[in-house]
Amino acid sequence: MRAMQLEYRLGVDGGGTGCRVRLTDRSGNVLGEGYAGPANLALGLDSTLHSVLNAVTQALGAANLPSSALARTCAGLGLAAGNVAKLRQAFAQLSLPFGAAVIRSDAEVACLGAHNGQAGAILILGTGSQGVLHEGGRFITVGGWGFALSDAGSGAILGRETVRRAFSALEGIEPSSGLTETVINRFAHDRSAMLEWATSAQPKNWAEFAPLVFERAKQLDPVALELVRDSARSAEKMLERLKALGAQCVCLMGGLAEPIKPYLSAPYSTLLVPAQGDALHGALLLAATHKDAVRSDLIEPSRLTR
Amino acid sequence: MRAMQLEYRLGVDGGGTGCRVRLTDRSGNVLGEGYAGPANLALGLDSTLHSVLNAVTQALGAANLPSSALARTCAGLGLAAGNVAKLRQAFAQLSLPFGAAVIRSDAEVACLGAHNGQAGAILILGTGSQGVLHEGGRFITVGGWGFALSDAGSGAILGRETVRRAFSALEGIEPSSGLTETVINRFAHDRSAMLEWATSAQPKNWAEFAPLVFERAKQLDPVALELVRDSARSAEKMLERLKALGAQCVCLMGGLAEPIKPYLSAPYSTLLVPAQGDALHGALLLAATHKDAVRSDLIEPSRLTR
Repeated sequence: MRAMQLEYRLGVDGGGTGCRVRLTDRSGNVLGEGYAGPANLALGLDSTLHSVLNAVTQALGAANLPSSALARTCAGLGLAAGNVAKLRQAFAQLSLPFGAAVIRSDAEVACLGAHNGQAGAILILGTGSQGVLHEGGRFITVGGWGFALSDAGSGAILGRETVRRAFSALEGIEPSSGLTETVINRFAHDRSAMLEWATSAQPKNWAEFAPLVFERAKQLDPVALELVRDSARSAEKMLERLKALGAQCVCLMGGLAEPIKPYLSAPYSTLLVPAQGDALHGALLLAATHKDAVRSDLIEPSRLTR
Repeated sequence: MRAMQLEYRLGVDGGGTGCRVRLTDRSGNVLGEGYAGPANLALGLDSTLHSVLNAVTQALGAANLPSSALARTCAGLGLAAGNVAKLRQAFAQLSLPFGAAVIRSDAEVACLGAHNGQAGAILILGTGSQGVLHEGGRFITVGGWGFALSDAGSGAILGRETVRRAFSALEGIEPSSGLTETVINRFAHDRSAMLEWATSAQPKNWAEFAPLVFERAKQLDPVALELVRDSARSAEKMLERLKALGAQCVCLMGGLAEPIKPYLSAPYSTLLVPAQGDALHGALLLAATHKDAVRSDLIEPSRLTR
C-alpha cells in the first residue's frame, strides 16, 4: 500500500467519558463525524477499539463511504492513557482496520490542536488536571496521575475540599458561610448521609460541587473565595512548571478553565493564549504527520515539528 | 440480683486495633487484666463481643476466678462506635454475661479516665482525630467522622498531604526537600509504584508517614515544617471548638499528641492538662456509675457527675 492511497484522514479524540471522531479528505474537508462511548486504554483495549469503531461507523455513514475506505485512511488516535507506551503498543497490535494509525494520548492531541501543531503547552483543569508541553517534537506531561496523589487544581480536589469544609462547618470546627450551608442543605444536614456519600464518592462526584463554589466565589462568599484561591494557586504551580520546562504560551482547557481565569495573577494569566483548535483538530494533525502507508503506532518526533 | 451482689468491676477499652480489659474489686484493687482483638461496634457486634470475652477470660484466669463471677460483675464498656445509640443498644441485646453493663464509646471512657470522672475534654490525635467534651453529665463529640470528610489534624491526613506533596515535588510542581526526597526514595522514585500504593492505601497506611514528618520538622526541613504547622492549625481549630462548647481544660491524647505540642501557639497550649488516668481507668469509673443490678446499656447523665 503506498502513501498516495491514503486519501482519508481520521481524527479520534478518546477520553474516559466518550470518544469523538472526524473523517476528512486529504485537504481537510470534513466528510463525517461520529460519537461513541469511553476510549481509555487503561480501562480496556478491546472496549476502546469497540468505541472507536462505533464512532467510525457513524462517520462513514455520514460520509456515505464503505468500510473498505478505512484501508485508505490514516488515523490519528488521541486516546486516554495513550501516553503509556505499553498500552499504546498493545493497542496497535489489535486488528486495526486503518491503512495507518498514529497513537498518542487525548491530552497530547488536545495540545497539538490548541497550538495548531506548533510548539506550546496546555493545562487541562477538569475533573482531573494535567499539563502537556509540546516542543521540539517531544511531549512532556505534568501531573495527571489521578485523585489520590495528583490532580491539584482540578474540580475533584476543589469539590472534595468544599465538602470537607462544609462538614467541618457543620461540626462547628470551621466558620460557616452561604456556600457551606448550601452544601449541607444538599444532604439535609444529615452527617451520616454525608459520610455515606463521601465514602463511595468518585472524583466525578466530588467535582459536581465545583461549579457551585465558583458561583459563590463570584458573590464574594468568603469560604468559596478561599477555596477557589487555593485552587488557583495550585493551577499557578502547574503553569510555573510548564514555563520552567520551556513553555512560552499555555492554553487553559477543561471545565474549570474559564471559571479559574479571573483568580490567576497577572504573571500567570499573561502566559495564556486562546486555543486555535480542539482535540479533534489535533488528532487530524497527528494523522497528517504520518506520511507513509506503513502502519506505525509511534509518531516520529521529527514529523511533528516539520 | 441486688446491687450488693456486684462485687467486681470490669473496665473495657475497645478500639479498632484491639481491646484491653481490667478487672477490679469494688475498692479498685486490680485482680486481673487481658488483651484481645478489635472491639469496634461498627465492624460487627458479634466480633466485638468475641474480642471482649477473649480478653475477659484472660483477666478471670489472672484473677483465679470462675466465669460465674461475671454475674457478680458490673462492666463499663468503652467500645469504638459505642457513641452510636443504635449500635450500643443492639450490642446490649446480645447475651452479655455481666451482672450489669454500661456502654459508651472508647473516646468517651478515655475522656472520663483523663479527668478522673470530672468535667473536661480530650482531643485524640492518632490515625484519626476526635474531640470529646464531658460536662454536666453529657458527652459532646467534635470530629471523628473518618478520613473522607473529617480527621483534620490526624496522622492519616498529615501522611496523605506528605505523600501528595512528595509526589508533587517529584513532578517538579512544588519544591523538594529532604523530607520529599526521603518519601520518594521509599518508592524508589517510581511514580507508578507510588500511585499503586496510594490507590489502595488505608488511613493507617497514610499515617505511617507522620512520624517521619515530625522528625524532619524538628530538623527544620521547610516542607515538613509547613505540613506540621498546617496540622497544628487543624488541631487548634478543634481545641477552639471544644473551648467554645465549654471545655476549661483539654487532655491531648493519641500518637500525635506529644509531637504536635511544640507547634501549638500559647493560647491553645495553656488549655492543655496532663491526663489523670487512661481509658481503662475511665471504663472502670463508668462501671462504678452503675449502682443497680439491673442491666442497662445507657449511662444516666445524673450518675456521671455525682
